[in-house]
Amino acid sequence: MGEVPKVEIIGLLDFPDVKPGDDLGKLIVEVARRNGIEFMDGDVIVIAQKIVSKSEGRIVDLQTVKPSEYAVKLGEELGKDPRLVEVVLRESHEVLKAEAGHLISLTRHGFVCANAGVDLSNVDGSGLRVTLLPVNPDESARRIRERIKELTGRDVAVVITDTFGRPFREGVVNFAIGISGIHPFRDYIGKVDRYGYVMRVTKVCIVDEVAAAAELVMGQGAEGIPVVVIRGLRYERRDDASIQEVVMRKEKWLFR
Amino acid sequence: MGEVPKVEIIGLLDFPDVKPGDDLGKLIVEVARRNGIEFMDGDVIVIAQKIVSKSEGRIVDLQTVKPSEYAVKLGEELGKDPRLVEVVLRESHEVLKAEAGHLISLTRHGFVCANAGVDLSNVDGSGLRVTLLPVNPDESARRIRERIKELTGRDVAVVITDTFGRPFREGVVNFAIGISGIHPFRDYIGKVDRYGYVMRVTKVCIVDEVAAAAELVMGQGAEGIPVVVIRGLRYERRDDASIQEVVMRKEKWLFR
Repeated sequence: MGEVPKVEIIGLLDFPDVKPGDDLGKLIVEVARRNGIEFMDGDVIVIAQKIVSKSEGRIVDLQTVKPSEYAVKLGEELGKDPRLVEVVLRESHEVLKAEAGHLISLTRHGFVCANAGVDLSNVDGSGLRVTLLPVNPDESARRIRERIKELTGRDVAVVITDTFGRPFREGVVNFAIGISGIHPFRDYIGKVDRYGYVMRVTKVCIVDEVAAAAELVMGQGAEGIPVVVIRGLRYERRDDASIQEVVMRKEKWLFR
Repeated sequence: MGEVPKVEIIGLLDFPDVKPGDDLGKLIVEVARRNGIEFMDGDVIVIAQKIVSKSEGRIVDLQTVKPSEYAVKLGEELGKDPRLVEVVLRESHEVLKAEAGHLISLTRHGFVCANAGVDLSNVDGSGLRVTLLPVNPDESARRIRERIKELTGRDVAVVITDTFGRPFREGVVNFAIGISGIHPFRDYIGKVDRYGYVMRVTKVCIVDEVAAAAELVMGQGAEGIPVVVIRGLRYERRDDASIQEVVMRKEKWLFR
């Protein structure tokens, strides 16, 4: 029998409040060290969208937003703050559903999610400041990964995540929204199973599974744990990986 | 600073071939011990659907299946074996989509998935035998959990999983299809975030995140690792938990 395969999900405690302009890569290395963790080659660093958005200044104060007539109308229909609706509309490539109190958008990145990823919680200002998704989350991940490499010499992968709902299931789950250094899929297509049967379609989206795994620890802290290290995962390293490979083109959608 | 939160995902190597009538709870305890693992209270035992279905005799030899006219027609349209289509139709509560080579069903359990969960791979017989989903995966999970309690005295949770596609994202991910002993959600609704803002809607489906996390290790073995132990997870124990809480009622669907 070989060595028992084991993957660890490790949360970094006491992450400080992140502000626009903060060097997130440096902050992550420092907090990891205070937690007694030195990064290793192959570690996957999973980062909650919220702190990436904050470090990039992707924060809007709703008090400064003047909603359009359409946003006011939609806000009334949905029972949402029209200023929030206005920001969501600006962040949307297309509004897919506006019903039953839900505003579901296709974002410019290609994500299908509530409120185009605009989020009220955990931003200073008691619900009047919201965060927007990073403009280019792959680029955000790449920058953080390179900074960690600079500071530690270690070749890690970075996955930025956000929680989204799912069409046919209750509750939200954490998804990958930006990646660097990790092939998004583990591919079984063409592999032979234990009975010699060639497997057909099993392209597993491991970056979404990494995101989901990380949330199990992110959600454990009373105040949230925005950065988690996944250690021991075997995956294919790829410098040119992009979350766009995970985004399904609209022409392929079966459910609309 | 408190103790660094850590969750472990541990794979059980060399799981034997499972046959109809096998005592899966006993087998899991035995294989765990051969892997040097004694279960602990609070461990979550994650089990791939395939071996549960096999142990329950949910196997069909396609050579014994006589397809209906409708199955023959649908098989031709989709490029699928009409006998497979026949089995899928029998397992479906409703066919939701039959197009572009995809046959997506709503199963009797309420899951939306390709081929109603009927699976060709990893069944003895080179692609002519298929497995069906367990009739009542919650009940399967409950039985295995009770057997483990009997044999070890430990109070574990059990999550049975299968890989499903997702409407707007490429690739499949592992989902929970039957649960016992674990509250399916971690609920942030009404909790106050670090800035005093009351969080609105963040009901996180941790059993799906547990399933996804487990797949990261299940998929690492060349032959697959059908049983994985999640250790160190904090979750609410509940004896009456059911995957039906995760299944969204069709009336609530926004995408059809």
